[in-house]
Amino acid sequence: MTLITRYKTIRNHSEKICEPLQTEDYVVQPVADVSPPKWHLGHTTWFFETMILKPFLTAYQVFDPNYNYVFNSYYESVGARVIRTDRGNLSRPTVADVYKYRAYVDEAMENFLCEEPTAEVKEILVLGLNHEQQHQELLWYDIKYILGHNPLFPAYAVENIEKNLTSENQAWLKVTAGLYEIGHQKDDFCFDNELDVHKVYLNNFEISTALVSNKEFLAFMNDGAYQDFKYWHAEAWDWVKTEGIASPMYWHYIDGEWFRYSLSGLKPIDLAEPVIHISYYEAAAFAAWKGMRLPTEFEWEIAAQKFNWGKLWEWTESAYLPYPGFSKAPGALGEYNGKFMVNQKVLRGASIATSPKHQRITYRNFFHPQLRWHYNGIRLAK
Amino acid sequence: MTLITRYKTIRNHSEKICEPLQTEDYVVQPVADVSPPKWHLGHTTWFFETMILKPFLTAYQVFDPNYNYVFNSYYESVGARVIRTDRGNLSRPTVADVYKYRAYVDEAMENFLCEEPTAEVKEILVLGLNHEQQHQELLWYDIKYILGHNPLFPAYAVENIEKNLTSENQAWLKVTAGLYEIGHQKDDFCFDNELDVHKVYLNNFEISTALVSNKEFLAFMNDGAYQDFKYWHAEAWDWVKTEGIASPMYWHYIDGEWFRYSLSGLKPIDLAEPVIHISYYEAAAFAAWKGMRLPTEFEWEIAAQKFNWGKLWEWTESAYLPYPGFSKAPGALGEYNGKFMVNQKVLRGASIATSPKHQRITYRNFFHPQLRWHYNGIRLAK
Amino acid sequence: MTLITRYKTIRNHSEKICEPLQTEDYVVQPVADVSPPKWHLGHTTWFFETMILKPFLTAYQVFDPNYNYVFNSYYESVGARVIRTDRGNLSRPTVADVYKYRAYVDEAMENFLCEEPTAEVKEILVLGLNHEQQHQELLWYDIKYILGHNPLFPAYAVENIEKNLTSENQAWLKVTAGLYEIGHQKDDFCFDNELDVHKVYLNNFEISTALVSNKEFLAFMNDGAYQDFKYWHAEAWDWVKTEGIASPMYWHYIDGEWFRYSLSGLKPIDLAEPVIHISYYEAAAFAAWKGMRLPTEFEWEIAAQKFNWGKLWEWTESAYLPYPGFSKAPGALGEYNGKFMVNQKVLRGASIATSPKHQRITYRNFFHPQLRWHYNGIRLAK
Amino acid sequence: MTLITRYKTIRNHSEKICEPLQTEDYVVQPVADVSPPKWHLGHTTWFFETMILKPFLTAYQVFDPNYNYVFNSYYESVGARVIRTDRGNLSRPTVADVYKYRAYVDEAMENFLCEEPTAEVKEILVLGLNHEQQHQELLWYDIKYILGHNPLFPAYAVENIEKNLTSENQAWLKVTAGLYEIGHQKDDFCFDNELDVHKVYLNNFEISTALVSNKEFLAFMNDGAYQDFKYWHAEAWDWVKTEGIASPMYWHYIDGEWFRYSLSGLKPIDLAEPVIHISYYEAAAFAAWKGMRLPTEFEWEIAAQKFNWGKLWEWTESAYLPYPGFSKAPGALGEYNGKFMVNQKVLRGASIATSPKHQRITYRNFFHPQLRWHYNGIRLAK
Repeated sequence: MTLITRYKTIRNHSEKICEPLQTEDYVVQPVADVSPPKWHLGHTTWFFETMILKPFLTAYQVFDPNYNYVFNSYYESVGARVIRTDRGNLSRPTVADVYKYRAYVDEAMENFLCEEPTAEVKEILVLGLNHEQQHQELLWYDIKYILGHNPLFPAYAVENIEKNLTSENQAWLKVTAGLYEIGHQKDDFCFDNELDVHKVYLNNFEISTALVSNKEFLAFMNDGAYQDFKYWHAEAWDWVKTEGIASPMYWHYIDGEWFRYSLSGLKPIDLAEPVIHISYYEAAAFAAWKGMRLPTEFEWEIAAQKFNWGKLWEWTESAYLPYPGFSKAPGALGEYNGKFMVNQKVLRGASIATSPKHQRITYRNFFHPQLRWHYNGIRLAK
Repeated sequence: MTLITRYKTIRNHSEKICEPLQTEDYVVQPVADVSPPKWHLGHTTWFFETMILKPFLTAYQVFDPNYNYVFNSYYESVGARVIRTDRGNLSRPTVADVYKYRAYVDEAMENFLCEEPTAEVKEILVLGLNHEQQHQELLWYDIKYILGHNPLFPAYAVENIEKNLTSENQAWLKVTAGLYEIGHQKDDFCFDNELDVHKVYLNNFEISTALVSNKEFLAFMNDGAYQDFKYWHAEAWDWVKTEGIASPMYWHYIDGEWFRYSLSGLKPIDLAEPVIHISYYEAAAFAAWKGMRLPTEFEWEIAAQKFNWGKLWEWTESAYLPYPGFSKAPGALGEYNGKFMVNQKVLRGASIATSPKHQRITYRNFFHPQLRWHYNGIRLAK
Repeated sequence: MTLITRYKTIRNHSEKICEPLQTEDYVVQPVADVSPPKWHLGHTTWFFETMILKPFLTAYQVFDPNYNYVFNSYYESVGARVIRTDRGNLSRPTVADVYKYRAYVDEAMENFLCEEPTAEVKEILVLGLNHEQQHQELLWYDIKYILGHNPLFPAYAVENIEKNLTSENQAWLKVTAGLYEIGHQKDDFCFDNELDVHKVYLNNFEISTALVSNKEFLAFMNDGAYQDFKYWHAEAWDWVKTEGIASPMYWHYIDGEWFRYSLSGLKPIDLAEPVIHISYYEAAAFAAWKGMRLPTEFEWEIAAQKFNWGKLWEWTESAYLPYPGFSKAPGALGEYNGKFMVNQKVLRGASIATSPKHQRITYRNFFHPQLRWHYNGIRLAK
Repeated sequence: MTLITRYKTIRNHSEKICEPLQTEDYVVQPVADVSPPKWHLGHTTWFFETMILKPFLTAYQVFDPNYNYVFNSYYESVGARVIRTDRGNLSRPTVADVYKYRAYVDEAMENFLCEEPTAEVKEILVLGLNHEQQHQELLWYDIKYILGHNPLFPAYAVENIEKNLTSENQAWLKVTAGLYEIGHQKDDFCFDNELDVHKVYLNNFEISTALVSNKEFLAFMNDGAYQDFKYWHAEAWDWVKTEGIASPMYWHYIDGEWFRYSLSGLKPIDLAEPVIHISYYEAAAFAAWKGMRLPTEFEWEIAAQKFNWGKLWEWTESAYLPYPGFSKAPGALGEYNGKFMVNQKVLRGASIATSPKHQRITYRNFFHPQLRWHYNGIRLAK
């Protein structure tokens, strides 16, 4: 696929995801972690404008100089005229304006890419496309949050993207102790956090070939585990009590039955499906209740060569830390991953919302341990 | 004017106010006190549906039973299925849905009003119309807040509704001590808080015939009064320091000059205009700096018979308290005013956004002392 | 009584109040409104040192220049060396240090007062003594809070100062409409907020000769009034729900019986005693439940000439506002009362903890409406 | 040393640490992480009473049944009579009461230990003594915080325990890549978090033989690194801005010179000493500014066999996670370490406040990354 074609395909896909939305759905930010869809559409565009068009295309005129305030994810106060705003408070630029902004930048980018770009530009471009694919996954999460926390429980679409999830045919895969190689070894794109390739020694371990099901998780709930501190980390227990957590996100108990909100609406729980939308805290508490544990990201990377994965991100016990030899790129691009390497947990795998190109066995996703609005699940180890 | 005509006129006016808005402007809630315009449009409709159509029109089918959660201003949790939400987090019902809801209720109301309603219904109807007129005024404030706190400073309209404001021809009106009658004495509608008519003894006082101008307020600012605790109430001083207050709301200092955001956009300060968008705290501090004071609401009511007022709400020194003989109506309508009679200050007059029917000399508006997003100003007394 | 004798008597009384305390009781600040007893002892001393000795006694050496940071009630950051602290975080100066500070300042004051002071000094001295008497009353409140919120419920003393409280012989006193004079008319000391004397017109009203009893308040509780929003101001209802309020402060339900903490320990409720330690919100809700109201401070001042009062502060409906002609003294002394005249409610009467000299019919006490750790009660009007 | 002698020695040492304190110093809790010294003295006593005397000594009478509320570190509400309190709000039990409690429990323990205890009791006893030694270290930190955040800057003692700290003779120690064994291998006591012994593969690395000095850290400060986001983790940058951090804890800039508070009072910075009282965030930012990194805990454990360490805890890059094979003991003792294994960073080494018995190369200390009131420093790796 040529770079232009790839650029167009990925850019179109972001708009495709938003197609079923009403204008109002693009605007709101119900909690700090959930950005308005129009912000994602603008921010990914701002990335190409700021990182490629402005520095490398001499004659380029920015679409609107004020957009830098609005779509820069690290924007800091620059003078008395600028007003502190949260993303969800901004009714302007409108959704139509954002789409005009996308069209304007896309046209400039496509012209610019008619000539083969330099290696430097190419590297930034590939990063920008991967960046947009990550925001596509966030778009799914944020859209689900916005619709699923509305008391009318509107469906995103009739067809459910959360399909073909199964936790059946559980077995234990044994892996023998030894020195293993971890990290991305191929020539194609990977993020800086997947490098350097390095050796890790693993003890003997067993890992489940299937994810934990709703049926198993309901047993945990019915056993009173959400009310018993002994299964929980100290911070997790505070979280459970302060937030009043007693079930996975999107679950509702209505007239004696458990339902969950999916992108196609409110549906009764399917016991055979894997449990989704739980925090690391809940995953770890479930494992403790079972007398087992979560795998480390290294165990996962080695074992996953021998079982099916994908469709859900899987919490690991590993903290998100630099690999030996990790170093940040200089400048703004260097901010991409390294600065998040504290207080977060690694998830491995890939979700139904993940771009196919990101579904690789060395990919390191990361979230704070209390978060659960992304597509995730539990795989046990022992 | 017949009741039907009056109903239609007032209902149309709410939609007229929103005409220049983009869909996105209807949705956001930048701070707790500012409601999304679509919420105002829905809530005032819910009032007629809930207070008149449901109890008095036997065959009435509610538009959507879930709207009770969304548009009830006092909504409390009713079961596990209901989700705590803030108004600004709700993308649904959409703006189009809300306009359909209005049309549906208006049609039912207009049919219902073809026959002369009972006295009971009539009383609720008149209250509902006054209620909608109060929300029309809030619509102006909230729209201004939403647009005026956007870093793009979009104009609401080319023509400025904030016009013909003047603070010229200042003089001191003397009022002689004596017993005066306070409260609404006519037969037409008034709110319960304007009753009973009662006697108040006033000392000799003088009151200004003009409001404090931007020029005078700039002198206060330039004298460092925002930085000198001696002019401020103790709570006001906390507020000034905690919030970093150093000018009226909507003022911006750009390249050595003061601008303010009006509904027609960002404009240089007009020194001859009255200062607007200040809190009671700032009004009282200005008066202290001048060695004067604010009038009480009783002084205002007596003196205002002899000077021009209207176009701005004027802060008074009076706390919002019940008049002698005040009593709450039974049921939901009784909640209208009495329950707010603590920790608020009375404003008298009327603003450019006030419905003409509400512009009466006995009308008691009330806001918490730190609020300033409504149209208000300062009149001095001594 | 000579000034010196009066000075000594009042200063000794503060220390007398603290006599039964353990050293540890002097130190803690369980909530922001409750100051450590050692702070009261130091702050009242600092007042005389700062307002009299430093400006008027040329050769005076301050006891410790750092004490200005610690005992100034309005202390603001003055340079990089100063650390933000809350009063309850300060273990030093120790209690023994504070008593040394008192002895040092008292000796200097007593020497200074051997000669008749100027009128200016005298006025400050009288204010300082009244200031210390107000802090004596706060000392009682704060000591009770510190001991009464300790899970060991230690008694302050065997003998109960909360005695001889009665709410018996209730009757309705009628007062005829007319013009009345309000404010302090005698020559002796009063606070600036009791002036000017001015006329107020009162309608006919009736006022209870007794305070509301625990028996009556239990009926309110047993009727579910704490759970029914219709008796409460909107802000009160938020407070009840957020804070989980369901009884007066210091009440505990133990094995089916109501107890309350008094300064002599935990005791069963005495039904004949007046209810104490309730907020304005609860007083107003109780009155609403009874279909009555609280008196205004003006009604109280006129009616109290004909019934017994004292032993408890009585919530009134009046907001704390300046009387006509009120003006602040220049300088620091002018900060005494005026700057608190917003968002507070007036209480009239006097409590068992009030200095006898402060028990006058024109005295205006004031607290925020949600506070209830002071000795207060409810008198109804209609 | 016999068990009784060891018990007495350790128990006496806690009281020895507190000897220079004034009664008031035992009571306050300036921030949530800092407990009042009297609470440490009571809580460590409660441990022996609750874990040994109550279950294993049949005739034992508890000193005071209410102390369970006060000294249980995990105390949860048990009935209407219990009041939520923070440790620093409790003036009772008094310091004298706490010493009586210690004497009472010590006497019972010493009698109980006259006979050789069972293996089960012995294990709990050894844990209890190690627990008390950990609280001894916390006592030092908390006492320093309480005195060092008092505007009078009182000294704990004339002699400075923070002595003989040096960061001189810096060199780079090279360690060769390979498989290494990690964890406690001897027979004597260790905490459960130091087990199981397991293999870790390390790449080639270099580690400094000396800690970072005040001189080096001042260069970091003078280079503006506290104001440049590029050296900081994203959460660290928020912390720096929100808390206004611009130097290590206890540093004060007075008249153009940097001072720091030590337990012997406020002193000018000694440039040759290692920097202390910095957070992980600051340690990591310093390393980034140097173009280096912090060692992992595994690198540290291997390399520390060849350099001098002790006197300060050293931040590592490692998150606090379970070793392979880690399992929690059943019951309350199992809560000891495992439940803290999220969102914390490992520190290795030992501080001047650490009990000699805890100074072992496999000891894993852990703190949240923003904390800095403990004795800690920076060792670089590359």
